[in-house]
Amino acid sequence: MFRRVYLDNSATTPIDKEVFEAMLPFLTEKFGNASSIHFFGQEARAAVDRARHQVAELVNARPAEIVFTSGGTEANNLAIRGLVEANDKYGKHIITSEIEHSAVKEVCIDLEKRGFEVTYLPVYEDGIVKIEDLKNAIREDTILISVMMANNEIGTIQPVAEIGRIVRELKETGKKIWFHTDAVQAAGKIPTDVEEINCDLLSVSAHKIYAPKGVGALYVRRGVRLHKQNIGGHQERERRGGTENVPYIAAFGKACELAKKNLAADAARLTELRNSFENEVGEKMTDFVFNGKRGSRLPNIANISFRFIEGEGLLINLDMQGIAVSTGSACSSGSLEPSPVIRALGRNDELARGAIRFSFGKENTPEDVEYLLEILPKAVENLRRLSPVYLQKVAK
Amino acid sequence: MFRRVYLDNSATTPIDKEVFEAMLPFLTEKFGNASSIHFFGQEARAAVDRARHQVAELVNARPAEIVFTSGGTEANNLAIRGLVEANDKYGKHIITSEIEHSAVKEVCIDLEKRGFEVTYLPVYEDGIVKIEDLKNAIREDTILISVMMANNEIGTIQPVAEIGRIVRELKETGKKIWFHTDAVQAAGKIPTDVEEINCDLLSVSAHKIYAPKGVGALYVRRGVRLHKQNIGGHQERERRGGTENVPYIAAFGKACELAKKNLAADAARLTELRNSFENEVGEKMTDFVFNGKRGSRLPNIANISFRFIEGEGLLINLDMQGIAVSTGSACSSGSLEPSPVIRALGRNDELARGAIRFSFGKENTPEDVEYLLEILPKAVENLRRLSPVYLQKVAK
Repeated sequence: MFRRVYLDNSATTPIDKEVFEAMLPFLTEKFGNASSIHFFGQEARAAVDRARHQVAELVNARPAEIVFTSGGTEANNLAIRGLVEANDKYGKHIITSEIEHSAVKEVCIDLEKRGFEVTYLPVYEDGIVKIEDLKNAIREDTILISVMMANNEIGTIQPVAEIGRIVRELKETGKKIWFHTDAVQAAGKIPTDVEEINCDLLSVSAHKIYAPKGVGALYVRRGVRLHKQNIGGHQERERRGGTENVPYIAAFGKACELAKKNLAADAARLTELRNSFENEVGEKMTDFVFNGKRGSRLPNIANISFRFIEGEGLLINLDMQGIAVSTGSACSSGSLEPSPVIRALGRNDELARGAIRFSFGKENTPEDVEYLLEILPKAVENLRRLSPVYLQKVAK
Repeated sequence: MFRRVYLDNSATTPIDKEVFEAMLPFLTEKFGNASSIHFFGQEARAAVDRARHQVAELVNARPAEIVFTSGGTEANNLAIRGLVEANDKYGKHIITSEIEHSAVKEVCIDLEKRGFEVTYLPVYEDGIVKIEDLKNAIREDTILISVMMANNEIGTIQPVAEIGRIVRELKETGKKIWFHTDAVQAAGKIPTDVEEINCDLLSVSAHKIYAPKGVGALYVRRGVRLHKQNIGGHQERERRGGTENVPYIAAFGKACELAKKNLAADAARLTELRNSFENEVGEKMTDFVFNGKRGSRLPNIANISFRFIEGEGLLINLDMQGIAVSTGSACSSGSLEPSPVIRALGRNDELARGAIRFSFGKENTPEDVEYLLEILPKAVENLRRLSPVYLQKVAK
């Protein structure tokens, strides 16, 4: 029987009911501008302050270190461009990884056109940056290291605390160097603590954790100077101009509170759901590879490359049967190239083109996985029957 | 009797009920990422496309010329920084006015630190830029003119169509020059037509026209090249990265549709409300000046400088009696300086500090004005009685 099963929670999530309730008053009667001095403004201001505490708590920061932005992309832009523009007198070299989200990677590519040099660390087959490579890449003129906390396509968790320790040690020798991590996929799914990570900058996004699309935040460690990007009014302690999106900020705060409270339980449940799916695939299906190192991944992502098919064909086939998945980052859709993340694992073109991300969310049930396992093998088999290479292989 | 009267509609407006209804499905069941290929994504994509048409219609643009942003500030940043960064090979001189919103002015000040030169046109007592001054300011290396369509504090409407004609004539001689106008306060309140204005770039914001805070748009005339500011995914035809804020975009579209439909009627009603207030002030009160040229203003703004008092004191006094007004731009609150807009009119410090903006909205009624006129003269008189200068004057 047809049903809708949403398995694209790394692209975006539905809004949690409690989050919706927390936001609603600010979409209706409490409509003030948080920068206004009067009653309506102060009501809005109080909501923003409360949310700032809630977001700060999720990542173990101080509220004053949280800058609200319009989302993860803006947070990454503010972190990287803001940091290097304010500190380029100390050097113009940046280190990042080959598997960053486009909101980091494209910013780096843009900076290369403006006189900066960027080293892209490889990740090899397991999808994880090697500390040795990082150490070798650090130069006299390196001012910024930006390595994501967990990858958005394959879910691999990067050794950010080790990177943070190296950066801290360099700082203790007097070197001017800063560490940014894009935690858009990680925060709220795995423990995320700016003190443990020792990062200077950390990006988060609301719509990956059951709050609306269009708000995010950048953690900015006390004392770190950024060149302002969204330039305008005095909002966010002069670090981000523009009228505060009070309803979404209130929603984001609530979502952080819930994520923190339910983190362990949600992670356990999602890990079980995801693993049961992967185990069944392993038993029922052939000619595929799992992408990303098992045991060092976010709880909710499975990424599988199916041979002899195009991921996009499979995506559309599953969609017709009510199942929503993705071939990679939604932000990169429209690109005709196979996923650069899967390519960075050393996979060939065929496997990169055949990759599908299944990303689970807290609304998913074992019945969803059951339905998926009913549809997926047939869909793959049907598509493969259109491939001459596959037919040759099975004819043998 | 105590009542709440909101007269700060230029800072932000309550969300219209129809706008709220248009947004609601995208905050609940239709939660997809508009960049996703599957059903959930396409549902979201359709909403964004529809809204793009609605916004385009309000300003007589083509849908493909509309870039959604996180608000007016981001639209102004993208317009100005985006334009000059992409075109600085043609020159590094910018012309703007002394009374721009901080999202234009602060961007210009920032560019001055990066090798650009900026001319700030004066406005004199009527609060309106003079075309002669503009013509005299244009140089060989001028690449951008950014003059707002209507001012946010005093409501004066600038001669943007005349400026646009001058820029078009210069273009016809082969000169590389572009024209941006910040229409955040104007669009939806007075007719706003990019063809009549002959602008290349025009900024609009949703929350000034009864839609939520956190979404806006930049009109970018076909063929105009911008350097991307929010760098990330392929969204908005490569002109603005970041997951689309689908609910707010849908709301913004609806608000534009309603604004267009009701523009003439709303403007007539607000003009009458505002004028009746000003006429009563003129009859009942003394020692004040109206700011901004009458007859060439937005329908909804009255700005009055009261002598012998501090605007902020009056604001707080009115707030205690339920009336919300402002001393200037909400985006500039926190600044201790008197309003630079009022100063630009040639007013002295006393008058600049005594300025109050009353900004009417479609929910305001004649009863609101009646209540205001009951409270305001007494509040002003009570504050003045604390001023030795005033007491000396009345003792004479």
